[in-house]
Amino acid sequence: MEAAHKVNFSSPRSFETTLKSDLKETFFPDDPFKNLRNQPPLRRAKSIIEYFVPIFEWLPRYNFRLLRYDLLAGVTIASLAIPQGISYANLAKIPPIIGLYSSFVPAIVYTVFGSSKNLAVGTVAACSLLLSETIGERVNSSENPTLYLQLIFTATFFTGIFQTALGLLRLGILVNLLSHSTITGFMGGTATIIILQQLKGFFGLTHFTHKTDVISVIHTILANRTEWRWQPAVVGIIFLAFLLFAKNLKKKNSRLFWVSAIAPLATVIVGGVFAYFSHAEKHGIQVVGHLNKGINPLSIHALNFESRYISAPIKAAVLTGILALAEGIAIGRSFGIMKNQQVDGNKEMIAFGLMNVVGSFTSCYLTTGPFSKTAVNVNAGCKTQMSNLVMAVCMMLTLVLLAPLFSYTPLVALSAIITAAMLGLIDYDKAYELYKVDKYDFFICMVAFFGVAFISMDVGLALSIGLAIVRSLLYAARPDSSKLGHLPSSQLYRDTKQYPVSTTAPGVLILQLGSPIFFSGSTYFRERIMRWIRDEEAIKDAPPVEHLVLDLGSVTAIDMTGIETLFEIKRMMDARGIKLSLVNPRARVVEKMIASDFVDAIGHDSFFLGIADAVQACRFRLHGSSNNELDRSDVV
Amino acid sequence: MEAAHKVNFSSPRSFETTLKSDLKETFFPDDPFKNLRNQPPLRRAKSIIEYFVPIFEWLPRYNFRLLRYDLLAGVTIASLAIPQGISYANLAKIPPIIGLYSSFVPAIVYTVFGSSKNLAVGTVAACSLLLSETIGERVNSSENPTLYLQLIFTATFFTGIFQTALGLLRLGILVNLLSHSTITGFMGGTATIIILQQLKGFFGLTHFTHKTDVISVIHTILANRTEWRWQPAVVGIIFLAFLLFAKNLKKKNSRLFWVSAIAPLATVIVGGVFAYFSHAEKHGIQVVGHLNKGINPLSIHALNFESRYISAPIKAAVLTGILALAEGIAIGRSFGIMKNQQVDGNKEMIAFGLMNVVGSFTSCYLTTGPFSKTAVNVNAGCKTQMSNLVMAVCMMLTLVLLAPLFSYTPLVALSAIITAAMLGLIDYDKAYELYKVDKYDFFICMVAFFGVAFISMDVGLALSIGLAIVRSLLYAARPDSSKLGHLPSSQLYRDTKQYPVSTTAPGVLILQLGSPIFFSGSTYFRERIMRWIRDEEAIKDAPPVEHLVLDLGSVTAIDMTGIETLFEIKRMMDARGIKLSLVNPRARVVEKMIASDFVDAIGHDSFFLGIADAVQACRFRLHGSSNNELDRSDVV
Repeated sequence: MEAAHKVNFSSPRSFETTLKSDLKETFFPDDPFKNLRNQPPLRRAKSIIEYFVPIFEWLPRYNFRLLRYDLLAGVTIASLAIPQGISYANLAKIPPIIGLYSSFVPAIVYTVFGSSKNLAVGTVAACSLLLSETIGERVNSSENPTLYLQLIFTATFFTGIFQTALGLLRLGILVNLLSHSTITGFMGGTATIIILQQLKGFFGLTHFTHKTDVISVIHTILANRTEWRWQPAVVGIIFLAFLLFAKNLKKKNSRLFWVSAIAPLATVIVGGVFAYFSHAEKHGIQVVGHLNKGINPLSIHALNFESRYISAPIKAAVLTGILALAEGIAIGRSFGIMKNQQVDGNKEMIAFGLMNVVGSFTSCYLTTGPFSKTAVNVNAGCKTQMSNLVMAVCMMLTLVLLAPLFSYTPLVALSAIITAAMLGLIDYDKAYELYKVDKYDFFICMVAFFGVAFISMDVGLALSIGLAIVRSLLYAARPDSSKLGHLPSSQLYRDTKQYPVSTTAPGVLILQLGSPIFFSGSTYFRERIMRWIRDEEAIKDAPPVEHLVLDLGSVTAIDMTGIETLFEIKRMMDARGIKLSLVNPRARVVEKMIASDFVDAIGHDSFFLGIADAVQACRFRLHGSSNNELDRSDVV
Repeated sequence: MEAAHKVNFSSPRSFETTLKSDLKETFFPDDPFKNLRNQPPLRRAKSIIEYFVPIFEWLPRYNFRLLRYDLLAGVTIASLAIPQGISYANLAKIPPIIGLYSSFVPAIVYTVFGSSKNLAVGTVAACSLLLSETIGERVNSSENPTLYLQLIFTATFFTGIFQTALGLLRLGILVNLLSHSTITGFMGGTATIIILQQLKGFFGLTHFTHKTDVISVIHTILANRTEWRWQPAVVGIIFLAFLLFAKNLKKKNSRLFWVSAIAPLATVIVGGVFAYFSHAEKHGIQVVGHLNKGINPLSIHALNFESRYISAPIKAAVLTGILALAEGIAIGRSFGIMKNQQVDGNKEMIAFGLMNVVGSFTSCYLTTGPFSKTAVNVNAGCKTQMSNLVMAVCMMLTLVLLAPLFSYTPLVALSAIITAAMLGLIDYDKAYELYKVDKYDFFICMVAFFGVAFISMDVGLALSIGLAIVRSLLYAARPDSSKLGHLPSSQLYRDTKQYPVSTTAPGVLILQLGSPIFFSGSTYFRERIMRWIRDEEAIKDAPPVEHLVLDLGSVTAIDMTGIETLFEIKRMMDARGIKLSLVNPRARVVEKMIASDFVDAIGHDSFFLGIADAVQACRFRLHGSSNNELDRSDVV
């Protein structure tokens, strides 16, 4: 029946068509301008502006009903932004006020350019620590705080440029280098070392190592036993218990999410009041210290491009840039899926990039869309990007009116806030799930975790990404192949190992090849096919293989080395007197087979559209001359 | 009919089984010890020794008939080894006698450990230049020749260690990083810069740049116009014409191969006699100069591991190690295919490694299996590795008796020999073939060519390999997907673009997914599927998609992020009210689906073994309630 259909060798696509389609799939897989076609020029211009500046799209339809929701969400995330801002600035070893600044200007920028309706802008712990680790390698934050801060701003500036460039070049694909396994391990490892850093606050230490790895930190803490104070430890543990209780409350009853959302602010306020009245500093409980009133001063003059320092901010920018994008985009997308909204990764990159460029001019450091804040934003019922603007206004009021009040915040309260947040980032369940489903993914995750915890954040991340890349390369270097058999009374041919019920015809070996046939896997392919033939002939009483049928239906890509391998396979089969048949090559493969004259070399009659068809032709050749068509009925 | 067969969810393999099979496919794809099973211990020990030291395997069966062939082949390659040895040593900027030494000891080592019966051992031009480029960056060969030579030996030693280690660790896979396109471009670029280096000899220059790139070399030649001499140019062009004529003769009549094989030696002898009687040096024709009598002195004491130099030989070792392996193994394998002999890449690595380690102790520099010499060996009728031993004996006799005679060889004769050899390495046809068949491969090739010619050999090689790796990564990041349609009056479902005759059922979208579904491609996959659905619904008068059938038959690998993507696709389909069916998942994918509880989440009844089956179930659901089974006959 199937013989009516033949492999389509007509009209291979032109190079231009192929290139255009490849570039589109690589850089514009989401087809962002699909609505632009067939539109009048003016409308098209409007659409393009709306595409790049999303506020033009949603603001005209904005109304008071939506504002009510966004107002509540905005105030809630502002209450989180204050303690988080101070805490993470502390982690980045920069003045705490910078953390507050960083929730003001970037949030306004995101309101204008952001495309996710759920995302809340803010600083994140992992990037804060990564910044301090990378810049700290070059400049000591306590010895030269001005230069250190300058380099932090410079790193933020480069991050912004880098992110914008990635977005404009449609290189969202780079963010995909971070697999879930890498992120799980990296976050877990980062949370671990961040928690260890908080021991400084809990123990009330004044001296602390600049290194972040587990061994150095534990060593420092033990070496400074004489400095340990019990007062901050007690206060810290009380706060931590309260925060964990509030968090737990949310898990039990999701309508009580606001308790956990305002718990950090409550901690800061209670801690500040307590510190103010108890003169805590005298009892070894350190406080944040002086905070200036007023909104963000300009910092554009503070950007430092001196060549002897420049490598540190550039390195920091690349690392934190990718990481911040991965967190921000992944989170935007996750909540987007829940609400069936589409989030454009490349557009988000441009928004994040602009946010950080403008931020670096206005005394802000690296911001993105943190998971915790975004989750609170969604829980609080945000409807549009407007909630970020509401937060910005709240932050402005705080900066203008209330900032000095926060100078009494005890450091140990910040440590408790950070610790409580970080404990949630060590995802044991996910690690176990990885172990259960995919051991290699688990390995990638563990390498990230232990690399971050025991070496450094960048090395851990790089090792883990490297392993994930090795996996992709190995995939191409060791393409799959399996022997197919016929499922009785059907037209199906399936893997004989997976379906032992399938039957094979003597003298005919059917192999299904995996994809791709690239340079790295082509030698393997050739040798593996020879092994299949050897194995087939090693079966007891098996006749020699006379027909080799290669099912190419799964092969979606082939390169020049791959085509040459097919030629070699053909030669090897000729040398052994085995007839080669090829089944169902895909359009892309056919194109290259035609261009390389492989089709002519092997002959049109060696190509078949279905396996059954090819097998029938083999049987005809095997038995045709003697008219002895044994059990042919099985094939039809 | 097909409904009789179901997807096999029984008995996923244990982790141990999977790991063992994965490791085997990765590191032992050729199943080297297949003959060892079921053998008594003594025979097994013998087999293992024979495996690692192939001479034990073939020597017992060696006879005089074979020796006759190997004798002729050995003498022929020795006649090539003398001029090539001197020429390439010149290229590596080391004393010419080292080039002669290098065809003596390593050839003996290969006779014992080598597994290819065709390979002829010797030095190669590309590696010689790469060595001089890499070591020359650290130490000037003319200012400090002793140290320079020490580092060349050290590099050879490290190359040997590196190659042996790769072989023992079964990392033959690394050699596969060099695609045919990379090698074509690299060889072409290298040949170009080597030919340019020979202009020094043709123009009789005494000053020359240490750089190799086209611009620097041309600049040097033009800047030293005053030094140009016509005498060496005339002599050189005559030799070159003779060599090219001899080469051409071989092409026209392959039985005259011996003319081209001894042409270089003839050039050296004629050149030497001419130089001796014409007192050539007085006319500006430089000669090789003093050559010591006697076989290789020990050089083990010359190995230099001083930390301030060590990085240069290590870098050279990694680069030349990979390159020499690629050339040697590729050539061994190519001739192996022709003669239907199997060559074990990992075993060859160990042989090459030992050859270079022992070589570095005995005043030899880097050797491998050069293409030209091996081709001559095969043409001359070699039967076993014994031809290398014959060559070694010839070289020994030369070193003991004749070496001083070669001191009169004019440098320009060497330049002519190298130029003639290199002209054959610029493979225009292959480059055109790449352009015709695969533009990306052509790009990889051109990057290697221009990178080597205009920057440096290592940068050109690295850029080209990098691009090839990017291709593999892009493949995993942008997996293929295509819409399938039914081919009338058959059971086949094929790509609707490739086979426009295929028909689709309204409301049912069938997609075939490419492989693998890895972290880097999973976001793309999800968005691409959404785009397929949008595109399907955008067709005029099309009903909304109610069933999505995913053909997973081509998906040979999936990771944790991929499994999570399937969960997300399921959620997205649920949100849109689309029923999801999965067809023919492969064993590896099924295992992970079971481990992650995906099978339970989606339900066993959503899995089908054939597309027809799945489509039938969809139609039943679409029309079943109203009993309106439109044109169902088409499906059976």
